[in-house]
Amino acid sequence: MNGAESLVRTLVDSKVDVCFTNPGTSEMHFVAALDRVPGMRCVLGLFEGVATGAADGYYRMAQRPAATLLHLGPGLANGMANLHNAKKAHSGIVNIVGDHAVEHLKHNAPLTSDLDTVAVPMSDVVIRSNSSRLIAADGARAVTAARTAPGRIATLILPADTAWNDADAPALAEEPPPRPAVESSAISAAADALRSGRKAALLLGGVALRGKALELAGRIAAKTGCSLFAEGLVARLERGAGRVKVTRLPYPVDQALALLKPYGELILVGTQPPVSFFAYPDKPSVTTPPDCNINRLAQIGDDIEGALRALAEAVDALGAAPANVATLDRPALPTGAMNLENIGQALAALLPEQAIVVDEAVTSGRGFPVPTATAAPHDWLSSRGGSIGFGLPCAVGAAIACPDRKVICLEGDGSGMYTVQSLWTMARESLDILVLVFANRGYQILRGELQGVGVSDPGPNALRMLTVDQPVIDWAALARAQGVDATRVTDLAGLIDAIRRGLSTKGPSFVEVVI
Amino acid sequence: MNGAESLVRTLVDSKVDVCFTNPGTSEMHFVAALDRVPGMRCVLGLFEGVATGAADGYYRMAQRPAATLLHLGPGLANGMANLHNAKKAHSGIVNIVGDHAVEHLKHNAPLTSDLDTVAVPMSDVVIRSNSSRLIAADGARAVTAARTAPGRIATLILPADTAWNDADAPALAEEPPPRPAVESSAISAAADALRSGRKAALLLGGVALRGKALELAGRIAAKTGCSLFAEGLVARLERGAGRVKVTRLPYPVDQALALLKPYGELILVGTQPPVSFFAYPDKPSVTTPPDCNINRLAQIGDDIEGALRALAEAVDALGAAPANVATLDRPALPTGAMNLENIGQALAALLPEQAIVVDEAVTSGRGFPVPTATAAPHDWLSSRGGSIGFGLPCAVGAAIACPDRKVICLEGDGSGMYTVQSLWTMARESLDILVLVFANRGYQILRGELQGVGVSDPGPNALRMLTVDQPVIDWAALARAQGVDATRVTDLAGLIDAIRRGLSTKGPSFVEVVI
Repeated sequence: MNGAESLVRTLVDSKVDVCFTNPGTSEMHFVAALDRVPGMRCVLGLFEGVATGAADGYYRMAQRPAATLLHLGPGLANGMANLHNAKKAHSGIVNIVGDHAVEHLKHNAPLTSDLDTVAVPMSDVVIRSNSSRLIAADGARAVTAARTAPGRIATLILPADTAWNDADAPALAEEPPPRPAVESSAISAAADALRSGRKAALLLGGVALRGKALELAGRIAAKTGCSLFAEGLVARLERGAGRVKVTRLPYPVDQALALLKPYGELILVGTQPPVSFFAYPDKPSVTTPPDCNINRLAQIGDDIEGALRALAEAVDALGAAPANVATLDRPALPTGAMNLENIGQALAALLPEQAIVVDEAVTSGRGFPVPTATAAPHDWLSSRGGSIGFGLPCAVGAAIACPDRKVICLEGDGSGMYTVQSLWTMARESLDILVLVFANRGYQILRGELQGVGVSDPGPNALRMLTVDQPVIDWAALARAQGVDATRVTDLAGLIDAIRRGLSTKGPSFVEVVI
Repeated sequence: MNGAESLVRTLVDSKVDVCFTNPGTSEMHFVAALDRVPGMRCVLGLFEGVATGAADGYYRMAQRPAATLLHLGPGLANGMANLHNAKKAHSGIVNIVGDHAVEHLKHNAPLTSDLDTVAVPMSDVVIRSNSSRLIAADGARAVTAARTAPGRIATLILPADTAWNDADAPALAEEPPPRPAVESSAISAAADALRSGRKAALLLGGVALRGKALELAGRIAAKTGCSLFAEGLVARLERGAGRVKVTRLPYPVDQALALLKPYGELILVGTQPPVSFFAYPDKPSVTTPPDCNINRLAQIGDDIEGALRALAEAVDALGAAPANVATLDRPALPTGAMNLENIGQALAALLPEQAIVVDEAVTSGRGFPVPTATAAPHDWLSSRGGSIGFGLPCAVGAAIACPDRKVICLEGDGSGMYTVQSLWTMARESLDILVLVFANRGYQILRGELQGVGVSDPGPNALRMLTVDQPVIDWAALARAQGVDATRVTDLAGLIDAIRRGLSTKGPSFVEVVI
């Protein structure tokens, strides 16, 4: 077998069996090996940002890494924005990036670039494999790195001759080290904070937003009266009926400051101290009040569930019923003129059990969390890195990870354009995704940001940089042109009909919501 | 004035008066300043690769840098593939990349990344401007760097507080140093090579492919009998009636090896030794024969025209009439079943005077150079860096640089998808571009590459990674959805009609050519 085949076998044997690809010449041996090795599902994206964003969504739902297959420095560069988002979400990904054959690099061929440097900013680990005899072991190392908690971006550079030369047997990735337990001093400090008499909150991130960990946080809240906050942007939040409700930190900095103002103790569980998305003139970056104590219970890669159990035990909360558990309360289907508020109600009313909601609706979606908090149980995925173009690819990956669950992708028209090629992959793979694009014809968030940074009088040139009209984009046509059944709605009844149709059909469907 | 305004004034005063933008919050002060400073034309792209590719096309035709405006590390990353192409084409560009305010960086907000490292691989110069008092001078330095021959990528990192704090007066960019003259030893060595009796060729790149320099090469060929070759991928080649014909080195390595085999002397004029695009097992990377002498007359940034004049003088060619001057010979309009050969004839027959041809037709376009060699005079622009997604954005920039010339963009359906958002910018700016997308429903080049790297038996999984069918993309609908008038043709008469219509209309038009 050649190096490429030994790598593909290593990946499949190590349970990395989905590969989001956009290959070129330097990856042709890897592509050819796919037919000799059973068990690898290959998903083509027509732009690399689709592949990397899909790998992010896949990890969030499958909790194990997918691979990507990318072509040289420019191909990796095209995937970097969504690798940024994935890195911030601590999604494990194994990027396989083909490079020129080692002897070819010195000739400065057109596609030669400083690939190693391209790989650095958005990777946690970069491995260059300069021999077909080493590629299996290097591949196994990359898998282990990607799997290591809390999930890492491992980029494996594969020179073409490493792929085509003779190799030995495949390798098997070692199990990653377990999540380390937090020290008892952190537990007792957090317990002291909760008992201090000062107003306290847990700020939850990572796996603290799911399953047993979230339930334990609910018990602690029930016993101690502390508040439960989540990061504003959640990698994956389990919510809806039966789940402990948490309040996400708001994006607008003034709202975040107001929310946190009463708190004297903040306990970080799998996250970092809260900070505004951007800096603004004469506003603080840190959104906790100056006299608030910041306690770090667990880092993102720690045994978060164990830490919460130990904290619950320390404050005698293990027997308490969790606080703030949502009970199913679907709103009535709204009527009247369509607005963002009743769109949220319609979503909450219609959301199916175990839906996966991918949220890149940006300003249009800010009101959706409240009505959906008591909807059927579902997962909520948002962009951790804030780089737009995240939503559609993430939905692709989530749908491949969970073929039996409906994915609902809430997308802005500005952000959706960045990786609009995702729609083609949804069609090709018949993915069970309902996409709603909220067409407000602009980068609506930037209108607010202009004021936020102190620009109160934008002129026509400035405003023209924030609008996506002239011409208006026909989103439904963009989707249909890529093979996705699509409709445009301009009123609430039409929207409700379209959502129902999309939910009752298996496979991709698309709704342009003109707001 | 604030830092942003002092930077915009510096750019405009220094004749950088077009800005291809995709801004975010960190660039809002720059955006706001556009209304206080007259003279900057701002062009919005709905993806950063549109902005950087347009800046490349702009430089090639305007011969002066445009600016781009990009948002943080991920925004720059999205523009990197076309910066790679621009860097390889030696196009001067001033990238303005907003960053977080300096004090905000340490808080690891979601969009924080190692922006400085992201900037390195595809930039020639990176400047971080950490004070509003310095930004004017830093901006002027960036402009001078971008203008310095042969054209450079200058990336200016602009922290948000540098933009919003108080600044002093704008600055004026210094004139770049002139192109250095080549040493007389290089002239006499090249002259000796031409007189050696061995079969000789000039290999031309950069500005050697245009104007007086190209004419001088023709005189040298006339006098000495040497051949004239051009790089396979040309940044800008003046060709058609009245221009000296040059033979571009072919992409397939076997053809390149065969073409160069008889040569004993190769004289490099503004280019590097010829090398295959990729390495292939058991084939050489260098495409000149082992016994061929490589003479370097002029580097890409040297005074190439002066070097060719000196060489012409040394071989007594200044008085010779240039060899191989094309005379206008438009082929008759073809009839019959449509194929790539007669598409090329149709193009050659219909090509208007002073058209700008942007060529990313990849495999579909390989036959076009021959029939168009005797078409009306035109410029030919191809991707120097080989990263696909170059064509549509390059056409945007070329059209803005030369509003009185027709731009014809020849695009593949695989490559076109990478930066399909360019079509919207063409519509918004009413750019005079005729786009032909050759829809062969696949990455056709990779089928050849599979064989080239020794894979003779690709299976269904491999082939599925190379095809863009299932579903077929409705390209005409993609264009119309973004506001560009579009048609689909499946026969030659329809194609000729569509080209004629596109050429007779001012503004963007689009033809999906199903082949």
